[in-house]
Amino acid sequence: MTDSSPLDRIRVVLTRTSHPGNIGGAARAMKTMGLSRLVLVAPESFPDPVADARASGALDVLQSAVVVPTLADALEGTVFSAALTARRRELSLPVQTPRGAAAELVRHAGQGDVALVFGTEASGLTNDEVALCTMPVTIPANPAYSSLNLAAAVQILCYELRLAALDESPPEAPVGTPARFEEVEGFYAHLEQAMRASGFYDPATSRRLLPRLRRLFGRVRLERDEINILRGIVAALQRKSD
Amino acid sequence: MTDSSPLDRIRVVLTRTSHPGNIGGAARAMKTMGLSRLVLVAPESFPDPVADARASGALDVLQSAVVVPTLADALEGTVFSAALTARRRELSLPVQTPRGAAAELVRHAGQGDVALVFGTEASGLTNDEVALCTMPVTIPANPAYSSLNLAAAVQILCYELRLAALDESPPEAPVGTPARFEEVEGFYAHLEQAMRASGFYDPATSRRLLPRLRRLFGRVRLERDEINILRGIVAALQRKSD
Repeated sequence: MTDSSPLDRIRVVLTRTSHPGNIGGAARAMKTMGLSRLVLVAPESFPDPVADARASGALDVLQSAVVVPTLADALEGTVFSAALTARRRELSLPVQTPRGAAAELVRHAGQGDVALVFGTEASGLTNDEVALCTMPVTIPANPAYSSLNLAAAVQILCYELRLAALDESPPEAPVGTPARFEEVEGFYAHLEQAMRASGFYDPATSRRLLPRLRRLFGRVRLERDEINILRGIVAALQRKSD
Repeated sequence: MTDSSPLDRIRVVLTRTSHPGNIGGAARAMKTMGLSRLVLVAPESFPDPVADARASGALDVLQSAVVVPTLADALEGTVFSAALTARRRELSLPVQTPRGAAAELVRHAGQGDVALVFGTEASGLTNDEVALCTMPVTIPANPAYSSLNLAAAVQILCYELRLAALDESPPEAPVGTPARFEEVEGFYAHLEQAMRASGFYDPATSRRLLPRLRRLFGRVRLERDEINILRGIVAALQRKSD
């Protein structure tokens, strides 16, 4: 790894942003804190002169932004991701604070790309989008008015990331290679298929099962070898049942 | 003192703001963090529909804002004040971080009104304005591009003030009931038996498999419900393979 700062390994992902001004404001917020990698999932309007104006001196961040059609595309290749969410969700992981999430993101950035994911202005991330990410994060806002501007939320998180990166002591020796997003998703798909085939899982009647399993394995931050072991177990049990 | 929160004793002072949109953005940033007392020193345009639009649901903060002609007026009656400054200044006090300044502001808010002072967009506070305040504060920004949007700077400081006022409340408790030792061991025994029956696990040749699985599930701190789900999956796959 040749990057000098963990901040270079952090993707800021804006999902289905409605107002181009917020994309520009987010780019400016990122650059003031030393982040540069902006990924836009299906933005309503980009590029856009309104975004350029709000970006001020951070036009370079906008110009190097990557536009992708889905959140899964934005997360491809990442080893860890945090999803901003204002809402309490059933079955969610324990919600992290921005400070705690920043420490986790910077720590995992020592092992590969990580992502910080923001939803749309009006309604945030969908439950399915949050489920694709490793960890939900909530800004501890005023319960009577928790509606932060999108660029302002990006500013807070990037500020915490900068502090965490400046703070970074030598990372703990990693025990194993963390699994990539697509490897974890491959395991979920394999497990789902096996559970269906065995009759344990019926999508019509047990809608909570898959979210519960994501919550369980999301907590553990699976390593690549562990994915291989788990898929090996499932495959072995399946072969017997064919 | 009847105020229930130190945040009610904190004035956010914007000095000679050029763009009304930033006044609205600052009001929104304040309200999301539970602050409400906005003081405007000689704003270029206020009230202004652009400010109202950017304030979104924080119109009440704008409507109760106090407009004064000088910074000295804005600071009248305060017992402590912090001045945001990007520049190093000769003869200044040691510069505080936002986190340190927030702790000081909240501490002094127990004794009376305090103020957090922001300068104009283009050039910040003058040396004379900084000198009127108790303590200079600098956001640790990217040295190559330290130009935060005014409302974004207000957002960071108000966020730190809220955290300081909440005094780092402990993280939330986990959602479910943790599994007991014997429940976890029951799961391991069940899994081992299923892996043997399927041919995946041969104790003679794969001595590292069980320790690896213990390491994996040990990290996750399984809950009781999760043990039941996992054993249900294993049992379902086994039934098919009998």
